[in-house]
Amino acid sequence: MKAIMGTLLDVRGAKKGRAVLLEGGRIYDVVPTGELKNWDVDEVFGGKDYLIIPGLINAHTHVAMTKFRGLGDDIPLDEWLNNVIWPMEKEWTGEDVYKWALIGIAEAVANGSTTINDHYFFAEEIAKAAQKLGVRAFIGQTMMDLVDMPIAEPEKGFKFFKKWSGKDELVTATLAPHATDTVSRELLEGVRDFSEQKNALVHIHVAQSREEVKRVKKREGLLPVEYLKEAGLLNERLIGVHGVYLTEREVGLYAKSGATLVHCPISLAKLEGSIAPIIRLWERGANIALGNDCAVSNNAMDMILEMKFAAILNKVKTENPAKATAQDVFYWATLGGAKALGLNTGLVEKGYMADLVLINTKKLHFLPEANYLSHLVYASRGSDVEKVFVNGDLIYDRGYFPKAKMMVEDFHAL
Amino acid sequence: MKAIMGTLLDVRGAKKGRAVLLEGGRIYDVVPTGELKNWDVDEVFGGKDYLIIPGLINAHTHVAMTKFRGLGDDIPLDEWLNNVIWPMEKEWTGEDVYKWALIGIAEAVANGSTTINDHYFFAEEIAKAAQKLGVRAFIGQTMMDLVDMPIAEPEKGFKFFKKWSGKDELVTATLAPHATDTVSRELLEGVRDFSEQKNALVHIHVAQSREEVKRVKKREGLLPVEYLKEAGLLNERLIGVHGVYLTEREVGLYAKSGATLVHCPISLAKLEGSIAPIIRLWERGANIALGNDCAVSNNAMDMILEMKFAAILNKVKTENPAKATAQDVFYWATLGGAKALGLNTGLVEKGYMADLVLINTKKLHFLPEANYLSHLVYASRGSDVEKVFVNGDLIYDRGYFPKAKMMVEDFHAL
Repeated sequence: MKAIMGTLLDVRGAKKGRAVLLEGGRIYDVVPTGELKNWDVDEVFGGKDYLIIPGLINAHTHVAMTKFRGLGDDIPLDEWLNNVIWPMEKEWTGEDVYKWALIGIAEAVANGSTTINDHYFFAEEIAKAAQKLGVRAFIGQTMMDLVDMPIAEPEKGFKFFKKWSGKDELVTATLAPHATDTVSRELLEGVRDFSEQKNALVHIHVAQSREEVKRVKKREGLLPVEYLKEAGLLNERLIGVHGVYLTEREVGLYAKSGATLVHCPISLAKLEGSIAPIIRLWERGANIALGNDCAVSNNAMDMILEMKFAAILNKVKTENPAKATAQDVFYWATLGGAKALGLNTGLVEKGYMADLVLINTKKLHFLPEANYLSHLVYASRGSDVEKVFVNGDLIYDRGYFPKAKMMVEDFHAL
Repeated sequence: MKAIMGTLLDVRGAKKGRAVLLEGGRIYDVVPTGELKNWDVDEVFGGKDYLIIPGLINAHTHVAMTKFRGLGDDIPLDEWLNNVIWPMEKEWTGEDVYKWALIGIAEAVANGSTTINDHYFFAEEIAKAAQKLGVRAFIGQTMMDLVDMPIAEPEKGFKFFKKWSGKDELVTATLAPHATDTVSRELLEGVRDFSEQKNALVHIHVAQSREEVKRVKKREGLLPVEYLKEAGLLNERLIGVHGVYLTEREVGLYAKSGATLVHCPISLAKLEGSIAPIIRLWERGANIALGNDCAVSNNAMDMILEMKFAAILNKVKTENPAKATAQDVFYWATLGGAKALGLNTGLVEKGYMADLVLINTKKLHFLPEANYLSHLVYASRGSDVEKVFVNGDLIYDRGYFPKAKMMVEDFHAL
């Protein structure tokens, strides 16, 4: 049995002087530090200067796009996608995707993500990279049939799902149609049928650019969320992403449906200067999760920083400093993501999965030694993460990735 | 003579394989690394994995407010100031201000600030804390005469200036009337006369809350910038801060005046959900600088992170991903601040002051090894700062502050 000592912090608040006991991939129990001596513990981590938080759920990623970090900054999304990203993506090889996925996942993990939900080409390579590092990964092979992109041929998506479904405890296959404007109704209906049969999650971009909304309106005579509803996809298995240009009518449909909206605040503010109507969705009862999107739109895979941006950008959107609060965004990054993916994570509590992050508070920005939730969201950053546990196993330890046996420096030499 | 090796990065771009030679507080020369052997060098820092950037100018701070970090998040500015901050500030002692100023300055330095421009009570204590750590500091004693706050009694401000003017190479005294709504016309005119006589910089909050604008309108029948103009303060010695609610007419007056506007994007977006019309000021020719404000409104003293927020929040404000660019915000954080304070810093160039920051790029988020300006602004964070030089002296070295002989841990024990 392993034990992690420190101050517990989840959306319910902070509790000092606790030890979290891990066994069989679960939190076996949470006890006062003083009682640790009563347990048969092999390894002890943490100590009084540490926060123990639930692993952060990075609910929307394209980890391999790390390759393009720093290319195409400061231009609009539609131009960026059509003129910068897609031409480069056509040149991908599987080997290259594997290398950059490894780097992208390592960065996300080092900054506190215990789970990624990835949407990309060469999904099998992403799955292998995830296995190598030991992260919990939901992976879908991007499917498009209205854009000329052979690596996104839809059949590959179904094939990937069939091959990887149930293969690895930590890797879950999903279905990943690209977006409402790049996928035909026929393909969406195929995804719906498959999703129903296999109880598969569907991960799709929704209303991410003004151009997308225009194209769907023109082709289908519908708004993006109406289109998803008509295609039978608007349900609790849907993980829609961005939703920047949702109308109030779509917000209502979405909130009632049980679907999750993944908010990627940095990425869309950087690409579009826009903020999704997250608070309207949240107040009407939609489930909200948080994601880093990719290193070329973000440009960092740091969920702690993403929480700060989420809180602040929503205050700007609502012109109200109370919306969102630190607690709201911490919920989105933990329980919100867990609910989207059907995971029993998000609280530091007996019975929950042992996906946990250990944060070193012996930093200047953690002074005064109080107000931990505020410090985590508003003052901390991914570099405060010292250790990351997934399924009870240590997968990151101060610059070292034990499963891959790699140091940060080794990724520079790939 | 000292030498720092690495890739130079300033607003003009990146140059690989350079050595920066320091002598007498200045950059003596910049040479290709291969020529370093021709120079008589005692100490060599950096290496091929390092970026050498100009020291970041933190052009608006309240370093001692670090004490209140995490208190009063997620509520509006006027309420925050009147009900949370001011009641706590009335309890300050000089000793306490010194302690928390030390912590706030240390945090700012550790994250890449070589200069702070502080505005606070017990200014003498702030000056002593700055001296202890070796940062370059502009310090003004906050003056208010329309609010009941004995520690802000105006005479203290003039006295501080007289006592500290010219006393220390690294400490420059300024005049710091609080804001347009908390200072009478009589006091502003006193500040103007004093500033003219002594060529003193004037550091003041301008249009930071809707309430401030209302109060000035009601009392003076003027907008805040019109009021400053009428009082004779709108000139190149003025460092106005925030400017969130400037009207287009005020933007025009300000841009023509030669005054600097300090943008504190995180702080005001967090407190007010608002973004100042920085791009309008910038496009009309105003000088823009960047600041962290304070650890209770921000809540971190990290100028690298402030650049990312500055770029992204202005894209949101303008709904245009091209405004601001990474280059714009890097200018504001370096040359813009230098211009405001009359410093010969902001470029890594022969003859400039040796205020420099060394950044370790052996991090996952600096991959691929290219696009350094983009990585600095959009992917980096203060924790990448490894060494900080002010006036040619090493004042921060991976968790250690050589002048103060203190480690990060020591600040926790204060």
